[in-house]
Order: sequence, then C-alpha cells, then structure tokens
Amino acid sequence: MIQAAIVTIGDEILIGQITDTNSAHISRALGALGISVTRMESIGDDDATIYETLSKALRQYDLVLTTGGLGPTKDDITKEVLRRLSGSTGYRENAGQLAMVYEILHTRGLEVLDSNKAQALVPDNCEVIVNRRGTAPIMVFRFGEGNCRLKDEPERRATLYSLPGVPYEALAALEDIQADIRAHYPVGKICHKNIMVYGLAESALAERIAAWEDALPENLHLAYLPNTLTGVRLRLSAYDCGDASMLDAQLPELRRLLGAMIYAEEDTDLPTVIGQLLRQKGLTMSAAESCTGGTISQLMTSVPGCSDYYLGSVTSYANAIKEKVLGVPQDIIARYGAVSSECVAKMAEGVRKLTGSDVSVATSGIAGPGGGTPDKPVGLVWIGVSGPHGTHTASFTYKNARAQNIQRFAATALNLLRLELLEL
Amino acid sequence: MIQAAIVTIGDEILIGQITDTNSAHISRALGALGISVTRMESIGDDDATIYETLSKALRQYDLVLTTGGLGPTKDDITKEVLRRLSGSTGYRENAGQLAMVYEILHTRGLEVLDSNKAQALVPDNCEVIVNRRGTAPIMVFRFGEGNCRLKDEPERRATLYSLPGVPYEALAALEDIQADIRAHYPVGKICHKNIMVYGLAESALAERIAAWEDALPENLHLAYLPNTLTGVRLRLSAYDCGDASMLDAQLPELRRLLGAMIYAEEDTDLPTVIGQLLRQKGLTMSAAESCTGGTISQLMTSVPGCSDYYLGSVTSYANAIKEKVLGVPQDIIARYGAVSSECVAKMAEGVRKLTGSDVSVATSGIAGPGGGTPDKPVGLVWIGVSGPHGTHTASFTYKNARAQNIQRFAATALNLLRLELLEL
Repeated sequence: MIQAAIVTIGDEILIGQITDTNSAHISRALGALGISVTRMESIGDDDATIYETLSKALRQYDLVLTTGGLGPTKDDITKEVLRRLSGSTGYRENAGQLAMVYEILHTRGLEVLDSNKAQALVPDNCEVIVNRRGTAPIMVFRFGEGNCRLKDEPERRATLYSLPGVPYEALAALEDIQADIRAHYPVGKICHKNIMVYGLAESALAERIAAWEDALPENLHLAYLPNTLTGVRLRLSAYDCGDASMLDAQLPELRRLLGAMIYAEEDTDLPTVIGQLLRQKGLTMSAAESCTGGTISQLMTSVPGCSDYYLGSVTSYANAIKEKVLGVPQDIIARYGAVSSECVAKMAEGVRKLTGSDVSVATSGIAGPGGGTPDKPVGLVWIGVSGPHGTHTASFTYKNARAQNIQRFAATALNLLRLELLEL
Repeated sequence: MIQAAIVTIGDEILIGQITDTNSAHISRALGALGISVTRMESIGDDDATIYETLSKALRQYDLVLTTGGLGPTKDDITKEVLRRLSGSTGYRENAGQLAMVYEILHTRGLEVLDSNKAQALVPDNCEVIVNRRGTAPIMVFRFGEGNCRLKDEPERRATLYSLPGVPYEALAALEDIQADIRAHYPVGKICHKNIMVYGLAESALAERIAAWEDALPENLHLAYLPNTLTGVRLRLSAYDCGDASMLDAQLPELRRLLGAMIYAEEDTDLPTVIGQLLRQKGLTMSAAESCTGGTISQLMTSVPGCSDYYLGSVTSYANAIKEKVLGVPQDIIARYGAVSSECVAKMAEGVRKLTGSDVSVATSGIAGPGGGTPDKPVGLVWIGVSGPHGTHTASFTYKNARAQNIQRFAATALNLLRLELLEL
C-alpha cells in the first residue's frame, strides 16, 4: 500500500496566525486514488527543521507532499532547502512558469519585479507543473532517479511534490498531481459513502443507529463528522473494495431509521441540495435575515448557477428596515418583539411579496454575546418559512458563541426550508 | 525554553474530511505565554499510532496538547489510550463534568443517554478542567508525578492536555489551560506586532518595504501573511523581548511607506475597523450586494454590537430586485448592464435611500465560473460607495475561483468604504 505524508511549511502555521486548509484538500485528492495519508505535520520556516523533516519523511513514505515556503519574500526558504536535499547544484529557469508570472501580474495590472521573475527558477533536477493561479511553480522531485538523490541513501525511491502555500493555488494543482501519481504508481481503491444528516446531535444520532452500526460487516468503518453548517456527515468506508455495492447494501435500513433527516447520500451541503430541489420543481426563493446577517444569502449564493432560483434577500438588521422594506407591521414588533414567531412570519411573507419568489425563509434571533433576556436568551432563534402552503414558524435555542450561533441559525433555517420544499 | 507540540487526533482530519482549526488557536494561546510550538502533527484514530506518537512527544517536549477522539461514539479511543499510556488502572467519574453533561443536554432539550454519562468518566490519575461547552472533559496528565508515569521512563516530566476535537469546545478551554501552564511553568515572552495592510499584493508590498526590511535589527523577524479577506498581515516578532518598544520604533518609517494602506496596527480585520470608524463618527451604513451575495453583510454582522451602526442590506441577485427594491432605473441596466459603474452607483444610492443610512457600499460583478464575456470577464467587479461626499465607483479584476473571487470582491468593497470613511 502506498503511504503518503503531508508536510506544511510556514512559521505562520506554527504560530497559529493561519489555519492549514491545504492538508485536508491534499488528503482528499490522495484518498480518491486509494492512497492513505498516515501523518500530517506542520513545521516552521527553519532551514534545519525543513531539511531533517523532509529527509526523514522521504525515507519513510512513498509520497511526500509539501506546501509553503515558496513565496517571493525572504522568509520563504523551502526551494533552497529542496535544492540541497535533492543534490541539485544549481537553478534553471522554467519557461512555462515565467510566462505565467507575466500573465498573472499583467492581468492584475502589476509590474513584473525581479523577485517575481525569480519565482520561475527551480533546482535543475526537478520537474515542473505550472502553477496557473500563482507565480510559484509546483516542483516534482523523483528521488532515486537521475541526479535527484538523497545524499546518504541515493537508491531510496520516493516522490516529493512541493506545492505553494496559498490554498487556491495548491488546490488548482491537485488534478495534475493526481495524474502524475497515476502515471508513476499502482493505485488501489478505498470506497466511501457519505450520508448527510441534519436534525440530530451526534450522540442522539449514534444512539438511534446503534443496532445498525453494530451489525455492519467487519471491513466497513463508520465515522461521525459533525459540522455546524452541514449537520452530521456519516462516512462509511470500505478498504481495498472492488466497488461500492457493499456500502450500498447498508443503506435501506439507515434510510428507514432516519427518514427525511437524510438530506443527501453524497458529500454535499444544504444550499446545494436546496438548489437542486428548487430547480427540479421550477421554484424561486428569497430570504429575510435579521440575526443571520446575510449568512443564508451568502451560503445560497456560494453555489454556481444559483441565479436560476435565488432572487435575493433583505438583511433587516435594524427594526426600521423590517417595517419599511419588509412591511412588518409596527405593532407586531411593539407587541411581540422582533424575535418572535409573529415577526419572522411577517418577515418571510414580506420578502416573498417584495421579491415575488415562490418560497422564502426568515430569521430573527439573538446571536450574542449580549442582548439576551430571561424570556429570550442568547442563542434563541425564530425561523419562518413561507410558500404556497402558507407560513410556518419554529424556534430553537443553541448555546454557543456568536459565530457558531449565527451559523447554526442559518443552517437550521435552510433545513426547515428544505423540509418545506419536500412537501411542494 | 519551554517546547510544545500539538497532536490532533482523528481519521476525519487525515482523510481530509475536516480541516484542523484547533492547532492554530492552541498555538496562539501558547504564543501569548511565550511558548513556541515546534511541531504540529495529525494522526488517525488508531490505537498504536496514538500511543506511539504521544509516547514519543512526551519524551521530546515539555507540553503536549492533543485534540479529538473523545466523542461518545465507537470511533473515539483517545481516552482509553491515555489511560494505558499514563499507567492508570481504572476510571472515575468527574462530578463537575457530569453536571455539565446534564445541563448541556437539558438546555438542548435532549435526553441524557448512557453514552453521554460515560463522557464524565476519566482515568483516575488525571486532573479535569470542566468543558463548559460540551460533554467531553478536558484532561490534564502530569507525567512524572504521582501515579501518572510513562512505563519505561517513569521519571520523565511532561504535561499532556487532552482537549475535545470540536473547535468551539477546545477554544473555550484555552484560558484555563493558559492559567494551568502559568501555575506550573516559568513562562517567558515573545513580542509580536501586527500591521494590517490592504491594497498591495504580497510581492509588491515586499518590494515597497525592502529597504526598511533589510535595515531591521537582527533579532527582529518579519513575516508576510496574505489572506483574501484581510489583505496582507505583516507580523514583526522579537524573541525574548522585555517589552514591545523595540518593535514600535520600526513603525514610523513603515507608516510613511504605506500610508492609508495600513488599516490597523493590531491583529484585526476590515469589518471591525469599519465598525470602529462608523462608531467614532456616529455614522450608519448599509450595503447592496449582487455578486457578493450577502458576504459583505455577513462580514459586517460578524462583529458583536454591529447593530449600533449596521442597518441592513439588500442582496439584489436578480435584476428585477435591483430595479424594484433598490430603484435602479431599468434603462441603466438595459444600456450599461448590471455589471457597470452606472449600475453600482445607483445600487449604492438606492440602498442608502431605502435604509436611510449615512454611507453605503454596493457590488456587481461576475464571480464565475460561468457568465463572463470578452468585455466583462469572470473576475470583474464594480464597486460603488455612496455618502455625504457623493458616490464613487471603481472596478477591479481578479483571476480566482468563484469562492475566492466573492471574498476578494467583498474585501475590496469594504476597503473602499473604509477609505471613504477616513475622509468623512
């Protein structure tokens, strides 16, 4: 079995100034080829540490993927360490990457500086995958081939892929890297099946499906992956599987246990599923957001092509906007407060009328940290859904920090909208 | 110098299904105590791997912080591994955590299941920091004390903190962990100074401040931390510093070189700075969003207390909403298109009038992946800012994927709004 390690390089990661998102993306790309990542490591921009960590990893794993340390500034030293580690004696210019440096900077209306041009220089014993989104080339070092060798173990074979640290640059290179791995290694297969569930906490879900889980064949592995925005993802995995039929056989019983709480049987999210439902049914939607402050709209518009069914939204943060723009009667807010069943019902109806959408969703709640009362504590949200079958409201209370509360309010609202769409 | 390592545990990390955000938060909390994190590692929910990795880390580092593997489901095995690793022979119930389990589940309206109660059981040789946001306790193992010992090196002293994997639970524990470290270790100090810059790409920024950077005293270290939403953060660090005055002395020249592109001299973001400016000046704002789809509103409302200055927004994704709700004249869109200087000017003016805000910002662009033309390519955005000094517009072109384009559009719009506020 091919073993891989990911090493992310950068003081900014170790010191906690940025979060490493690259490792997860790289791991998924390798997983799709059936290659397991056994270890992820993050180290600083320190010459000796980079040298030792990579030198050790190349002795232990077949594939080592690194990100970071390739920028044009002085704190980036990965390329020079790789040159020494691989036994290269000098740099050469990569024409493809140099052309890309010019294209990218010209598009951005920027001058091409010497430091930018230097980005296209690479150790003379590596291959280059052109980075189409940034100036630093992706370098491929095939240790144990030609003049690319570990000093004290020259026959050791392993491949090192050096990717840029900027996430959208690293991501864009993954398909090319997958193709390169396929061309050089015999790749097996791990099968996964993802089941997306919204509406049960992890422990309650585990309890509900305990008997089913206990009866799973031994070579299947179940993982619970809770996420504020997407609910719980159940990931069922089979190792060295021929096809996914063994996984599929487990699904009928799971569907019976969870019903409409299962919103998809693939790795997706609520905005995508809602978009699919709206498109199928030829319906349009809108949103009126108070406490969620634009999050529902932002989530819905993250899906490409959403303009087919998403008309727009009003963020009515101030009560005056609820009244003036959404037409919530003043006495509703005076009598019941802005965080009330009555108010979200009027907000949902108001935005539906304003935009002419078929369905709508509205939120009003208290995200915190301040603003709660004994009657209406921080974490309370009222959600309204309006459509051809009328207007429904429901309330939920969560006990999180502000950012989590906002995300949970938005996700719960989207889930209620989804359940309503299933009835239409 | 106290050395620390962070080990995150969970198949979901290794397989790339979730991104590890805990390590960055933990590292910042340790950095505030002057403790350097030398290595971050992620490993799977595998008994032998957890045992070996932690056993090795405890021999190498003074502090080892782990997250994950503490959930109520069968795939979580960290607690049992820690029991064996530390030489504990059994579990005891922690009353404080058990009370919290009941409180949390009752608040959420959930039954307390046996699997939940089991969360309050801990190895009998660890101390507990109660997790106030979740059911899994934070465990503190003081290796080399009492009956908490490594089997083959019983005198070795090191502390292991086991945190939950759920990020907002782990975060809430960090202050208690900092206090515990202060109580048990002599802590030194690293000084950092963050300078937030928006409006220059990393390489252009490096070129502009190259002479200043070259002249920095040797014990100062500069890092460039680019981020789509916050621009480039310059982090100037001094190790073993007494106070921050050595860092402060470098700032006047940097201010002269960068001017208003510096939007803060602390680690913050554009929505927070805009909120401060609005509050200082007693002004209110609103937003009209097309291509950014609610992102500007979502960012502005992520700041607690924003209701003092943030009135609301309209996401006018469909052109009909631009006309009907924001009052953009139909012939403007017909003549110039929705992605035009003329349209964003009318959108900004329209939402300002609709909400009665003092200032407003509007966006219309093409986030992609589809929808571009030779004249108006994917990545083009028009931004309008309206206020007491009139309405200004500007256009930018970025060459990213959809999600990045949307974030960059929103950040650029916020920056233009900030520059306008500086003039008021």
